[in-house]
Amino acid sequence: MLDYNVPGGKLNRGLSVIDSYMLLREGTEVDEEDFYLACVLGWCIEWLQASALVMDDITDNAYTRRDNLCWYKLPTVGLSAINDGVLLKCHVQAIIKRYFKEKFYFMELMELWNEIGLQTAMGQMLDLITTHTGAKDLARYRIQGYRRIVKYKTSYYSFYLPVACALLLNGAKLSDYVELKNVLIEMGVYFQIQDDYLDCFGDPQVIGKVGTDIEDYKCSWLIVQAMELANENEMKILYENYGKSCPECVAAVKNVYKELDLQDIFLEYESRVYKHLVSTIDAEPDRAIREILKIFLKKIYRRKK
Amino acid sequence: MLDYNVPGGKLNRGLSVIDSYMLLREGTEVDEEDFYLACVLGWCIEWLQASALVMDDITDNAYTRRDNLCWYKLPTVGLSAINDGVLLKCHVQAIIKRYFKEKFYFMELMELWNEIGLQTAMGQMLDLITTHTGAKDLARYRIQGYRRIVKYKTSYYSFYLPVACALLLNGAKLSDYVELKNVLIEMGVYFQIQDDYLDCFGDPQVIGKVGTDIEDYKCSWLIVQAMELANENEMKILYENYGKSCPECVAAVKNVYKELDLQDIFLEYESRVYKHLVSTIDAEPDRAIREILKIFLKKIYRRKK
Repeated sequence: MLDYNVPGGKLNRGLSVIDSYMLLREGTEVDEEDFYLACVLGWCIEWLQASALVMDDITDNAYTRRDNLCWYKLPTVGLSAINDGVLLKCHVQAIIKRYFKEKFYFMELMELWNEIGLQTAMGQMLDLITTHTGAKDLARYRIQGYRRIVKYKTSYYSFYLPVACALLLNGAKLSDYVELKNVLIEMGVYFQIQDDYLDCFGDPQVIGKVGTDIEDYKCSWLIVQAMELANENEMKILYENYGKSCPECVAAVKNVYKELDLQDIFLEYESRVYKHLVSTIDAEPDRAIREILKIFLKKIYRRKK
Repeated sequence: MLDYNVPGGKLNRGLSVIDSYMLLREGTEVDEEDFYLACVLGWCIEWLQASALVMDDITDNAYTRRDNLCWYKLPTVGLSAINDGVLLKCHVQAIIKRYFKEKFYFMELMELWNEIGLQTAMGQMLDLITTHTGAKDLARYRIQGYRRIVKYKTSYYSFYLPVACALLLNGAKLSDYVELKNVLIEMGVYFQIQDDYLDCFGDPQVIGKVGTDIEDYKCSWLIVQAMELANENEMKILYENYGKSCPECVAAVKNVYKELDLQDIFLEYESRVYKHLVSTIDAEPDRAIREILKIFLKKIYRRKK
């Protein structure tokens, strides 16, 4: 179960713990044990993610994940995959206890993981509820609701958690880094907006999957923008075709997106948020923190996959 | 979601926290805050149980729970119930943090809950795996495996956890109560054996449900006993009929159980384990602990539901 579900991704989140920690330690020698502990926390994020993916794939009735059959789709697994998701998450705590019990920051570390576990589950709840109300009335898809979903469901665990782990490993107190948290959350939202854009306009060969956000009635950044900009006729087309799996319906929605110049609007958003993030990062007094944020931003700016 | 899934049970586990705590405090005045904190931990067990039931009902394809439709069976819920199970469990930690963060026993309390959460999930895993191998060869159902499933899946959270919470509330260290833990685990196994017996031989009117352990291929205490005692012919009948839902198959299995005098064997087991528990309890030096164990035993001895 572990071999099937934990490795196999891009390991971006896990590696971010190590990268961030090494930047924080720049100029000081990192011994083998310190490096090992950064790896442990990196893997913990991958385990947490595996837990969420195993369970969300069931809820979404997904078929493949990372080019393999979804775990629950294996004939010998089925819905016992739910408990495997629970086990994966329980083991994150067990691993942290095993390696960090004697550290002075143990309690803060446990609380960080508990809090982010809860936030991620609340994000998934918001996403499920929003899709449910959106399916009744598309007009319920608004940018505030969108940002809230993304912040909770993705940003905390994918962007804030790796850096927070590196900070704790380095002996810092998280309450001293509130502004850093906000910047990372903002980058997470930007990352997800790219994801939504690529789902529709990216090259399936490059992103490695065929997007189905339109078919799945997803609260995507694109539909949120479209609901703000569409005229009466375009609105009618969206209402009639969004969330349906027939190729003609999907094409009709994409056509409205193109009429509304959503591709240009995305590019504008991207350069606006990039500029804003660059100036926020430049204003950050701590050199190591600046470097961490720059590397994150570099990894995602104008990404095509 | 909370109103649907948390209340509505018998609250045995939650009330056990309060009962145990009041016995430990006998002779001292319990102020309102102390009592409230015992109630908080009692509810936490009910939340943890709700989390497990919400998810296990999906895995078992169950239809009703506590005389209502299972949560996931509601048309507006479906498989998003998986995330609700996750949320219920996350909130146990959040509640404990909120009420106990400043207590000196906070860390031990968190670790107790993490450990028992893990043990319960491992018990569910053992149960699912065992049913899977048992479905290939009934002879794999053995008493050692049976006891291991019950210990992890039921005993820890239903019997040990309430008393351990009461002890921590009272300022005790759990490492001083290893023997108590063993007695409570043993009672949990006894409780589950009764459950398995009643599933087949209890009065559906009294136990409030129609048992389906035979149909569901469950690793029940009865089939474990039967596999030890059956002759060649009876064994053949069990192999041919266990795990099938046709009423004739179920009747054939029950008939073998009766031929093997499993009802008498159960009664013998029950008086043997009762005597053993009574003598263990009598040997316990701490009066409050003796009382706690006696009350647990009294609640379950010869229960009909």
